[in-house]
Amino acid sequence: MLTLDKVYQASYVLKDVVRETALVACPKINPECELYLKTENLQLTGSFKVRGAGFMISQLTEEEKARGVIACSAGNHAQGVALAASKYGIKSIICLPDGAPISKVEATKSYGAEVVMVPGVYDDAYKRALELRDEKGYTFVHPFDDDNVIAGQGTVGLEILNEMKDIDAVVVPIGGGGLISGVAYVIKQLAPHIKVYGVQASGAPSMYNSVKDHKIERLKSVSTIADGIAVKQPGDNTFELCSKYVDEIVTVSEDEISSAILALIEQQKMIAEGAGAVSVAAVMFNKLPVKGKKVVAVVSGGNIDVTILSRVIERGLLNSGRTCNLCIELVDKPGQLQLVSTIIASLGANVISVHHERASETKDINGCFLRLVLETRNYEHIKVITDKLEEVGFNIVSQY
Amino acid sequence: MLTLDKVYQASYVLKDVVRETALVACPKINPECELYLKTENLQLTGSFKVRGAGFMISQLTEEEKARGVIACSAGNHAQGVALAASKYGIKSIICLPDGAPISKVEATKSYGAEVVMVPGVYDDAYKRALELRDEKGYTFVHPFDDDNVIAGQGTVGLEILNEMKDIDAVVVPIGGGGLISGVAYVIKQLAPHIKVYGVQASGAPSMYNSVKDHKIERLKSVSTIADGIAVKQPGDNTFELCSKYVDEIVTVSEDEISSAILALIEQQKMIAEGAGAVSVAAVMFNKLPVKGKKVVAVVSGGNIDVTILSRVIERGLLNSGRTCNLCIELVDKPGQLQLVSTIIASLGANVISVHHERASETKDINGCFLRLVLETRNYEHIKVITDKLEEVGFNIVSQY
Repeated sequence: MLTLDKVYQASYVLKDVVRETALVACPKINPECELYLKTENLQLTGSFKVRGAGFMISQLTEEEKARGVIACSAGNHAQGVALAASKYGIKSIICLPDGAPISKVEATKSYGAEVVMVPGVYDDAYKRALELRDEKGYTFVHPFDDDNVIAGQGTVGLEILNEMKDIDAVVVPIGGGGLISGVAYVIKQLAPHIKVYGVQASGAPSMYNSVKDHKIERLKSVSTIADGIAVKQPGDNTFELCSKYVDEIVTVSEDEISSAILALIEQQKMIAEGAGAVSVAAVMFNKLPVKGKKVVAVVSGGNIDVTILSRVIERGLLNSGRTCNLCIELVDKPGQLQLVSTIIASLGANVISVHHERASETKDINGCFLRLVLETRNYEHIKVITDKLEEVGFNIVSQY
Repeated sequence: MLTLDKVYQASYVLKDVVRETALVACPKINPECELYLKTENLQLTGSFKVRGAGFMISQLTEEEKARGVIACSAGNHAQGVALAASKYGIKSIICLPDGAPISKVEATKSYGAEVVMVPGVYDDAYKRALELRDEKGYTFVHPFDDDNVIAGQGTVGLEILNEMKDIDAVVVPIGGGGLISGVAYVIKQLAPHIKVYGVQASGAPSMYNSVKDHKIERLKSVSTIADGIAVKQPGDNTFELCSKYVDEIVTVSEDEISSAILALIEQQKMIAEGAGAVSVAAVMFNKLPVKGKKVVAVVSGGNIDVTILSRVIERGLLNSGRTCNLCIELVDKPGQLQLVSTIIASLGANVISVHHERASETKDINGCFLRLVLETRNYEHIKVITDKLEEVGFNIVSQY
């Protein structure tokens, strides 16, 4: 059973294993509230997961430690278990589906784990991990539905209260629910007036649905860039704890997540992964009653694949009207390209790229499409530009 | 004249203006040394520049303050002056060349400056700023070659020594030389055994050349992604201070800078701009005698344009063999695409994108080019893949 004692014990034990992460002021994300970030993206291994894994492993018997631990994950849990096991000098085996990103496999190995690649998807890797547990006597480290794991994650809540007592609300990402269960439990024991809000990706709303319907529900599929919280079903313990201690759960869209990641980069010079940014997205887009409040958003992790990061940045720029893709039909008259360029320059946009292509679909046999990527100020700025181009007679074939 | 007193005074004055940034452990960049980052990218305005501007402005007479200040910059200096002036409740005018990135213009305005867009390049904007100074009686805030500005930047050195005394070396980016002049002066006064190293981009080695040749030299042109340190000529004061107090200056290439930015993102979850990352690049690529030493690298700023950031990430991935672009010629036989896919999958690479194009340049009239972007582990991994493809008979048209 989860107790406050257990969380305090975890806090003591983890002093040698984890970093106490800072609360960082974040003034521009939502000027209507006073926002601070609990920067678990700067935690060792790049996420809070090492806390739960660390405390869980610390509580094993000497015999269990001697046999080693096993886990199944392609992400933060894998790295957390690997590092925690290494710190205690014990063996860890991580089962991964064979489609896992190379960067995550390499990272897991770098923290000292033995990696077993399992053909198939997550569920296959999970099954294999349980088989290996039974065959070899390893202890299975559950990613969220375990009291010791939850107590370890709860230390995030303790640290927040230690550093800043006079807050009104804490906003926490939810995947399986381990982090928010620990944090909400701690906060409602020590400072029940502080609101605890949970955030899920709208493409993976398992806890959101389950709590709403008062029973555990399983999603058929999940789809989100916040892969760290793409969990199909809450745990029994985490469902119960969330139902009891979390004040409200909301969801955020993929575009909101992308915009939050971009805002953290530009304003805070900080990398968050999708799962880590959902809390910030919820505050940024006023999904929660934060107006006039002092709020802590937990940025739970920063392990975003850099190739995905590139795409998120591009998408975030498009979503905020700071990049604009235009396709304009040019007819066969001299000076057309120059005219377009002049209009765009006079309205203060920068041309990032130009692609000029002859295409048989244009009305004029010598016509062509001009594809432009523009750096713009915002949506109003884009509208001024397209209005002007159309006014002068250009046909804007597509725009996004 | 620069004195230690002046730096201590700046340190006292700036307590209300700037943030004392943390020293952060950075264990993986170069395992041969013990590296810490002085995170001025997390400074207010995203760079150290607010320190020098803040102290300089604080020292103005009431009359000068009433008239306001003027500066010329498209970047960090503009934002530093704007914020510092706002904090002292005085007016600031920033002259910008009209081609300046929109994001920088908006950021400068957001800190409270009045922006004057000047047709032309930096030199034109600079000229206009001096004209306006003479016309209106504004005080000109030099970006680096001013004792008070240098004293303000020197507070970075004081903070490093206050937090960690037992270091062997400090590595500092050099543009005009204001930051390193202040830091080197402080360190050589208080702890002369600590080495102070400077780093420039190889595309803008003005201080490197000048110190080497013992006289101030002007570069005809500068070209680097580290736009914050793309300075054509050192200042008189900064040249003298660097000649006297800096132990060694080295340069780093564009690819080294990109790799350092990427490493900071992946390992530290932190955004540095090119100028801010040159110090880390110098340590990462062993340009300096850091082996076995305890070293602080100053990450001077984080204001990188996100569109440039995307490109840097892509380049960094290519440079480390973690992305590979292949163009393969396919002949008109069924199953060719499948065969390529099978080979790639069996060797453990992930396909990120596929572009299949008919092109008349292929030998076979029905042939086509298959352009692939692969996620790979490293250069050896790429070689295994291309060797296998060639062994099976595919013609690899290009690869980078």
